[in-house]
Amino acid sequence: MTAVSADQIKTLREQTGAGYMECKKALTEAKGSMEGAVRILRAKGAAIATEKAGREARQGVIGSYVHAGRIGVLVEVNCETDFVARNDQFKRFVNEICLQVASMNPAYVSREEVPAEELTAAGLNGEEARKAYAEKFYKEQVLLDQPYVRDPSKTVQGLLHETVNSIRENIVIRRFVRIVLGESLDSKRHPS
Amino acid sequence: MTAVSADQIKTLREQTGAGYMECKKALTEAKGSMEGAVRILRAKGAAIATEKAGREARQGVIGSYVHAGRIGVLVEVNCETDFVARNDQFKRFVNEICLQVASMNPAYVSREEVPAEELTAAGLNGEEARKAYAEKFYKEQVLLDQPYVRDPSKTVQGLLHETVNSIRENIVIRRFVRIVLGESLDSKRHPS
Repeated sequence: MTAVSADQIKTLREQTGAGYMECKKALTEAKGSMEGAVRILRAKGAAIATEKAGREARQGVIGSYVHAGRIGVLVEVNCETDFVARNDQFKRFVNEICLQVASMNPAYVSREEVPAEELTAAGLNGEEARKAYAEKFYKEQVLLDQPYVRDPSKTVQGLLHETVNSIRENIVIRRFVRIVLGESLDSKRHPS
Repeated sequence: MTAVSADQIKTLREQTGAGYMECKKALTEAKGSMEGAVRILRAKGAAIATEKAGREARQGVIGSYVHAGRIGVLVEVNCETDFVARNDQFKRFVNEICLQVASMNPAYVSREEVPAEELTAAGLNGEEARKAYAEKFYKEQVLLDQPYVRDPSKTVQGLLHETVNSIRENIVIRRFVRIVLGESLDSKRHPS
């Protein structure tokens, strides 16, 4: 069994937000490899997120962020209980989503929201080419598929999974609104 | 000529945000009556607002306010210059509008935005009754016609006029967005 140092556990906890024992276990399982342990925790996070996903999330928080008085964002993030809605880690997550929306300007929360016309409108030939385009489109326009601004090695979905993994409640980014000073109101892509 | 005390001028300035000489002149004109002076300043504010109203307002600020994590508001207020956009009184005005929208839940910024159907849908008989209804509707649903939450003796329009009067630039409340935690997304009256 690989010996795992307290420093390694600390670093992994800071990086993933997972608990002490989970980090120790993941590091042991990954034979001390930090990258391997992160992968293990992420896979576990995704599994827990899937397990929690069916549960009703009707509590939560409305978050806001204004960048330099010129870009304004509101975000609604739901969770299951009022208790979690007051949790600091949950609030930090909501703030991160506000920041992400302000800086990366997504058009949709999830792939399910993207109208089919918008994907087919590209007019690419061939299934492979279309698929490649769709992936590129998702990465740019879909919040959950975007690289997380503060750590582009993970997606926003990854950050969500980590948060669910740590908080142990279903969390749903329900919607966002983003307005820019002086923008034309007709040309808005995303009328909330 | 009525003698006007420094205390009266101070009180009037605090109440209206108008300049020292303007307050002194209004108090003299109103023969020392505070109420009369306020009326004079408001009429003047309205006149200045009308005079400024034609001027292009493309600068400004996006303001935000979240009440108890459950009601989120974004407001875009335009002015003519970047200089005024950074002015403290202008920023305070934007904050007041955010607070107003959060607490009084208007559906429209101005009467011009109200669809005719919404007024006729009331099905009242007679021009007078319809007019009375329309006034009631405006006071409830139109931001500029609402009583200002912090001082219901004036309307939001009145507050706007006072601010224009004091800042001497055209100011336009361009739009607002208001979202409530857990509200049904289909039933939103005001999809920005």
